[in-house]
Amino acid sequence: MTVTRPDLSTRLSRRAQTMNASAIREILKVTQQPDVISFAGGLPAPELFPIEEVRRAADTVLTRHGAAALQYSTTEGYLPLREWIAARHGIPARNVQIVTGSQQGLDLLGKVLIDEGDTVLVEAPTYLGALQSFQPYLPRYAQIPTDEGGIDVQALEAVLREQAAQGRPAKLLYAIPNFQNPTGRTLSLERRQALVELTARHGVLVIEDDPYGELRFSGEPVPSLYELGLALAGGDPDHNHVIYSSSFSKTLVPGLRDAWVQAASPVIAKLIQAKQGSDLHTPTLNQMLVTELLPVLPRQIETVKRAYGARAQRMMAQIETHFPAGVDFTRPQGGMFLWVTLPVGLNTTALLPHAVAHKVAYVPGSPFFALGGGENTLRLSYSSATDTQIDVGMAALGAVLKEALA
Amino acid sequence: MTVTRPDLSTRLSRRAQTMNASAIREILKVTQQPDVISFAGGLPAPELFPIEEVRRAADTVLTRHGAAALQYSTTEGYLPLREWIAARHGIPARNVQIVTGSQQGLDLLGKVLIDEGDTVLVEAPTYLGALQSFQPYLPRYAQIPTDEGGIDVQALEAVLREQAAQGRPAKLLYAIPNFQNPTGRTLSLERRQALVELTARHGVLVIEDDPYGELRFSGEPVPSLYELGLALAGGDPDHNHVIYSSSFSKTLVPGLRDAWVQAASPVIAKLIQAKQGSDLHTPTLNQMLVTELLPVLPRQIETVKRAYGARAQRMMAQIETHFPAGVDFTRPQGGMFLWVTLPVGLNTTALLPHAVAHKVAYVPGSPFFALGGGENTLRLSYSSATDTQIDVGMAALGAVLKEALA
Repeated sequence: MTVTRPDLSTRLSRRAQTMNASAIREILKVTQQPDVISFAGGLPAPELFPIEEVRRAADTVLTRHGAAALQYSTTEGYLPLREWIAARHGIPARNVQIVTGSQQGLDLLGKVLIDEGDTVLVEAPTYLGALQSFQPYLPRYAQIPTDEGGIDVQALEAVLREQAAQGRPAKLLYAIPNFQNPTGRTLSLERRQALVELTARHGVLVIEDDPYGELRFSGEPVPSLYELGLALAGGDPDHNHVIYSSSFSKTLVPGLRDAWVQAASPVIAKLIQAKQGSDLHTPTLNQMLVTELLPVLPRQIETVKRAYGARAQRMMAQIETHFPAGVDFTRPQGGMFLWVTLPVGLNTTALLPHAVAHKVAYVPGSPFFALGGGENTLRLSYSSATDTQIDVGMAALGAVLKEALA
Repeated sequence: MTVTRPDLSTRLSRRAQTMNASAIREILKVTQQPDVISFAGGLPAPELFPIEEVRRAADTVLTRHGAAALQYSTTEGYLPLREWIAARHGIPARNVQIVTGSQQGLDLLGKVLIDEGDTVLVEAPTYLGALQSFQPYLPRYAQIPTDEGGIDVQALEAVLREQAAQGRPAKLLYAIPNFQNPTGRTLSLERRQALVELTARHGVLVIEDDPYGELRFSGEPVPSLYELGLALAGGDPDHNHVIYSSSFSKTLVPGLRDAWVQAASPVIAKLIQAKQGSDLHTPTLNQMLVTELLPVLPRQIETVKRAYGARAQRMMAQIETHFPAGVDFTRPQGGMFLWVTLPVGLNTTALLPHAVAHKVAYVPGSPFFALGGGENTLRLSYSSATDTQIDVGMAALGAVLKEALA
């Protein structure tokens, strides 16, 4: 038998050739040195995980459900869990699809909604993972500018008109209205109302990604785009043009990969078919575990909110103390992230090695822009930082920024 | 606010419009009547699940790993599990990607390999779920005829030549060489050797789906296509044109959704990127659970093999006794399925309501053919049937077939 050594990289699909290793993944490698204080990741605080409760829940679920917890189960997901989720928004369980992490929800939505060349509207900046989920379906992106209040709705209207005038109306808008990743910003009620009405008028679907909504530590809650869309559809979830995505990753634990999508029945019907081909179903045990843990959830959310709120306050105070004039930053009312804007002309990617040399790390902002921009921005995560790390880290970063500005 | 009631089914992607509810799912609904003995499903026997061992493993994993078992983890998968899998074929862990069920492996492979219009070669019949995974990437299918010995390699060669002559060489061959779903057939060593050399010569990738390989209850093991491909590549896993997919679903339990893909590094690199956008990673806890259960696996496999072997033998004996002359069936040496062929002209889909009226159910064979055919075939699963169900069920089905043939 002669040895055959084909070059297998030549057999990949066109879509695979457009995929890249996540810029952030590569950046994080630089920052992973043992003595560097890193605000670059976006991990929920592991010291707050209800480990003991999960262990008891595993015992209970395996005792009560036995083999059923370990057998194949329906693609739609575990009905008691779907019913609990549906009740939060007063919709039927048939409008809820359980998915293996929000990331799968975004992938499946891309699969059933996006044709090659379809225009997807995203915030500038937006969640990088969503771009990765949509990319294999080869959309075109249009960026919607944002300011301290989130999406600029007048700019959105201009883009929608422009796309429609070009005869290629946008397919969907992807938005994170609460404590956005990466900026920590929250969209106001007035803008939400305008956004929902505008997109409905233009026939543009909205994917509302809301992993952090429950983690509000200051200010007043604002209705979700989903709720406003539901009202606009006369309360009928099967005609709501807003699709809602959320998860137990940030409120409970991320490692179980339990999340969901709420959508109109025609979309759910296709999500089910797409999910059958994608992983058949989300692990049975994991869905039963989360269901068993639902009574713990309110207390857990309180714990997480209190911790993240204190960490955010401390980080903001330390930034006030240590950062030079001319550096701007967001003041999140919830979630895990804070966004820093340096004077135009400074480049946070070029600056990162200096920061790492000063034993502090962040994520440069530009990878979060679908079409580029934001070279002078950076993201800080406070969710899993200790008080000392925040104090020492912000002082160090302040020194780096002062040096850069000098 | 005026009520807006958009028709959301008009916003779906072209690929979503080609997706259909699984024919089998619809058929199974017909068969789900409480007093019907169903051989239609394909479920592993739940009474054999090592529930107590899983419960102990959950306790151990959560005690030993704590928050790490519930935190985000790497896309590639849990290293100790990847190392164990890699060692089975003597390859490095970097050639192993953990996936959320084999179904996800097939979806990700479709994503990174198949361009619209690419020719995918499949057995006639083949696993329906694979067709569902590949469908969103809009391939063309070519069916390769099979006989009692599995894929007809001469027919494969003719198809490969024909495709090449048309200037559009096939992209990949999808095959299940061991105890195939749906036929229960196994490909001989001679044919495996020929298949691997042929596909290598034609530059056609092979996806070897092997969920049942460990469940051989009679006959002698045959090397996998992956091993033969590895030898052909001079032992270098990065030039093996065979991609191997397997799972813990049939050997341990399916509800944890732990499976893997082994492939050359250029393919794995793209699988990682695709999986990042698809579900970030397979649930951390589930990967640690399976790793903790590896010592139990050999005993568990013995238990399952013994049970399935006895059930298969009993089903074959009952078929011999009750089925009329002119009805042919496969004699599986492992796995979960047996395939029945009626005389040409009979239609198993039309016959199903009669069978259900006689309190017995099967899956008609035609949905397993990518391009149609097999109207006179049906699949029986013995994996989760009791002795009485087999005896009563085969007698009832025999009576239905005699009536149909009369």
